[in-house]
Amino acid sequence: MLSSASRSIASLKSRCAYEPYASKVCKPEDCIPIFKDGMSIGWSGFTPVGDPKVVPIALSEYVEKNNLQGKLRFNMFIGASSGAKNEDRWAKNGMIARRYPYQNGANLKKNINSGKTFFADKHLSMFPQDLAWGFYTKQRGGGIDLAIIEATEILADGSIVLAGAVGSAVEFCHCADKIIIELNTAIPSFKGCHDIVAPWKPPGKPYNITSVDSRIGELSIKVDPRKVVAVVESHAIFPGRPVKGADATAKAIAGHIVDFFQNEVKQGRLPENLYPLQSGVGNIANAVVDGLNDSPFGNLTVYTEVLQEAMLPMFNSGKLKFGSSTSLTLSQWDKLYDNFDFYKNKFVLRPQAISNSPEVIRRLGVIAMNTPVEVDIFGHANSTLINGTRLVNGLGGSGDFLRNGYLSIMHCPSARKTKKDKTGISCVVPMCTHIDHTEHDLDVIVTEQGLADLRGLAPVERARLMIEKTVHPDYKDQMREYLNLAIQATQPKGAGHEPQILSKVFKMQENLKKKGTMHLDSW
Amino acid sequence: MLSSASRSIASLKSRCAYEPYASKVCKPEDCIPIFKDGMSIGWSGFTPVGDPKVVPIALSEYVEKNNLQGKLRFNMFIGASSGAKNEDRWAKNGMIARRYPYQNGANLKKNINSGKTFFADKHLSMFPQDLAWGFYTKQRGGGIDLAIIEATEILADGSIVLAGAVGSAVEFCHCADKIIIELNTAIPSFKGCHDIVAPWKPPGKPYNITSVDSRIGELSIKVDPRKVVAVVESHAIFPGRPVKGADATAKAIAGHIVDFFQNEVKQGRLPENLYPLQSGVGNIANAVVDGLNDSPFGNLTVYTEVLQEAMLPMFNSGKLKFGSSTSLTLSQWDKLYDNFDFYKNKFVLRPQAISNSPEVIRRLGVIAMNTPVEVDIFGHANSTLINGTRLVNGLGGSGDFLRNGYLSIMHCPSARKTKKDKTGISCVVPMCTHIDHTEHDLDVIVTEQGLADLRGLAPVERARLMIEKTVHPDYKDQMREYLNLAIQATQPKGAGHEPQILSKVFKMQENLKKKGTMHLDSW
Repeated sequence: MLSSASRSIASLKSRCAYEPYASKVCKPEDCIPIFKDGMSIGWSGFTPVGDPKVVPIALSEYVEKNNLQGKLRFNMFIGASSGAKNEDRWAKNGMIARRYPYQNGANLKKNINSGKTFFADKHLSMFPQDLAWGFYTKQRGGGIDLAIIEATEILADGSIVLAGAVGSAVEFCHCADKIIIELNTAIPSFKGCHDIVAPWKPPGKPYNITSVDSRIGELSIKVDPRKVVAVVESHAIFPGRPVKGADATAKAIAGHIVDFFQNEVKQGRLPENLYPLQSGVGNIANAVVDGLNDSPFGNLTVYTEVLQEAMLPMFNSGKLKFGSSTSLTLSQWDKLYDNFDFYKNKFVLRPQAISNSPEVIRRLGVIAMNTPVEVDIFGHANSTLINGTRLVNGLGGSGDFLRNGYLSIMHCPSARKTKKDKTGISCVVPMCTHIDHTEHDLDVIVTEQGLADLRGLAPVERARLMIEKTVHPDYKDQMREYLNLAIQATQPKGAGHEPQILSKVFKMQENLKKKGTMHLDSW
Repeated sequence: MLSSASRSIASLKSRCAYEPYASKVCKPEDCIPIFKDGMSIGWSGFTPVGDPKVVPIALSEYVEKNNLQGKLRFNMFIGASSGAKNEDRWAKNGMIARRYPYQNGANLKKNINSGKTFFADKHLSMFPQDLAWGFYTKQRGGGIDLAIIEATEILADGSIVLAGAVGSAVEFCHCADKIIIELNTAIPSFKGCHDIVAPWKPPGKPYNITSVDSRIGELSIKVDPRKVVAVVESHAIFPGRPVKGADATAKAIAGHIVDFFQNEVKQGRLPENLYPLQSGVGNIANAVVDGLNDSPFGNLTVYTEVLQEAMLPMFNSGKLKFGSSTSLTLSQWDKLYDNFDFYKNKFVLRPQAISNSPEVIRRLGVIAMNTPVEVDIFGHANSTLINGTRLVNGLGGSGDFLRNGYLSIMHCPSARKTKKDKTGISCVVPMCTHIDHTEHDLDVIVTEQGLADLRGLAPVERARLMIEKTVHPDYKDQMREYLNLAIQATQPKGAGHEPQILSKVFKMQENLKKKGTMHLDSW
């Protein structure tokens, strides 16, 4: 056991076994001259864990002090979201010209939604491959200028042991011209927690992962030491991500899912310990994990993008055997570190190309569970854009898991309140205003009202079941009326495989904008 | 070489090495009592090749003779489309209650679009897995009642050598209660052409395919001989699918794609013999294949769903080294059979779960090329539903390839004519009326006007490039105006990551319906 006090005393030397880096050791502010306007930069980290801290903060301070806001702008690549104190401060300072492939920052989002920062979502499994293949930086012939990587140890060959996330760090190190290492000595070394696989070009080899705990790679990222331009000591620990408690809606959703699993086991379509679980982030996802913890299921496994706090007690109780992910996201890091030797044998952190690999997800039969912005009656889902235009967070790995999972489940409340109406927003609509997951991808949709098992159903059957099982009672009649109108308008003309009336299809969303509710006076 | 004349003389006995089946040999009409109303039935075949013929025709004749139209209805599972004389005649006779996961029949489509037959698209790689896992026949506890399989040989262990397609035949044989074999002695035995892999439940094993010609399975489908209830000799050969010649539009599209490939090779993002190609069906796809045949590229390979006619001359010239698919689709079968020994070494036919496997497609770096109904300026595509409601053909494997390919390309004409207007339909619209492939999936969109390389671009950048490169000149101003209006309506409010105006987003499609053209008087 490593106490909070003892953790802060590890010396830089005790964590760096590669002598030649001694000459590269410097302070965060010494790195400032490395940064040039227009650079393409990759950061380690994922949902913000394992991201560089002291160097980005030093650069922010430099920009603020010298009134360089908007004058040093970068193309930023980070596996997923990063932190408020490092990344979002860059956004506030106008330092982010472009950002891929996921974000979750207040200022960054504001810039993206007002057209000041260019952003694009990409399936998280594909992003690092496409970057390594040169698709994101065609204008410079591929590669990036700089990678900034948080490490917890440097091995004798100069290779890097990361912190609590892998993300796209391997690809960034591989294709960057220069690398800055932030060696964090305030947290334990994560040596042994990672399974690092090098980037490849087609044809690749099979990822020989046949169980959540299979290991196919190395413990550290091999780098060309000549590319390392600075090694900076860091003691920075950012606060963990707070966990919202489960409300009645989330608990009801979790209940429906556990019941569904029990029936699937009974029918022989799932084994008694289920298949490996993937669960998104947020309070519904947490409630589902809590629900499983309280369920009769045991010997569970997880193959996911982010290992969540709610999984720690399940490791303790033995309910959860093993977890694979690309990141650990906790609200209180001491919960992990105080029993680090115990937990270290319970999980493996993989590059996001592998944690989210379609190949592995399908082979292992992962059960995918994610929360959308809205779903439609035919089984499409919007995960990214409110009203089809305003970015919320991003796609993340939802598409990787939902497309390839054995079972693909989306869960959301049936309705949300507005200022004017306690059920002003129906989360189930005739047509989503943006589609990230199609009717060909989703198996099951759940709200607190109930669970719609859409497998094997035709579009009209799906719509009837969605209305019956998932729509809030306040909207059931309105939705039934729409479906009947759409059937009448299309099927007699031989054009109604999936009945819709284009002129009315977004009427509920339009009404919300004008009148603060999706309740219509009439269709 | 096997001449047309000699092919018809193979005897049933010479093609069936499993003695006990002798007692099962019967005539097509003897199978009629096997069929019961409400059965779930799987047919071999794919795009219609390798589908059963004489038994389905005998049943149609029985239904027509006894006025049983609409009284014998089945839940039909076929890998992809089947033929006009067998399947679509069943549709005409009201014999198809349900149909999965793809179709292409005049009567069948009519029934689906008027709500008389329940149909649902599914990614072709996933359909057979989901069927084998019981997702399509939950009400009967999984499995199907009957499989009807066209064979070209039966081996000494009773296992089945298929004809020119695999499709989902392996899964059908595996999970059917009863099997009828149609042994076709009028075409050569395809023994040696298939790579049959048995169905599995998670956790599976890696598909150890690292090259288009890798083999990981067997030559025939192992079956429990007790399930075989009839062996029927067939001499039926249906005519091949006619190939449309390439028009100027298709040739221009092919030219843009070849130019693009040449630049990608120059930039080091593609090797000189490209990566394995996947190409959809249709005249644009054929033109692309023709274009590659006339290009400097050599030593090409194909990893696709359907090997097309245009590939035969490429095998002859050595331009194409090897092809992997689940089906061969030719207009004239003699072209193949007259040099069967030569061609047999040039291709392998795999189950569609493997020809379309995300795992293999991504590993090999397949270049995916498909034709949509319409695309939108942000890079989404509609492959299935005209006006969001009327089924054309279906999704097929487009999602398998476009999601997982190294490069994902969609090609279509920039505009189509209507009765009233020679460019009445713009194939590039503000928002697709149905979305099968998302902006997160597609890399490149091509029309005869030009090629838009969308990789690494944010939504607004994509939209500008799409308008610049792919939109028909008749629509450029209209589309530019829309984009500017949408930007103005959303970005100043901080809600414009992907600018759209919901109330106008389908105005072009609405105008088409009312006035026969997508040219608007005003936005």
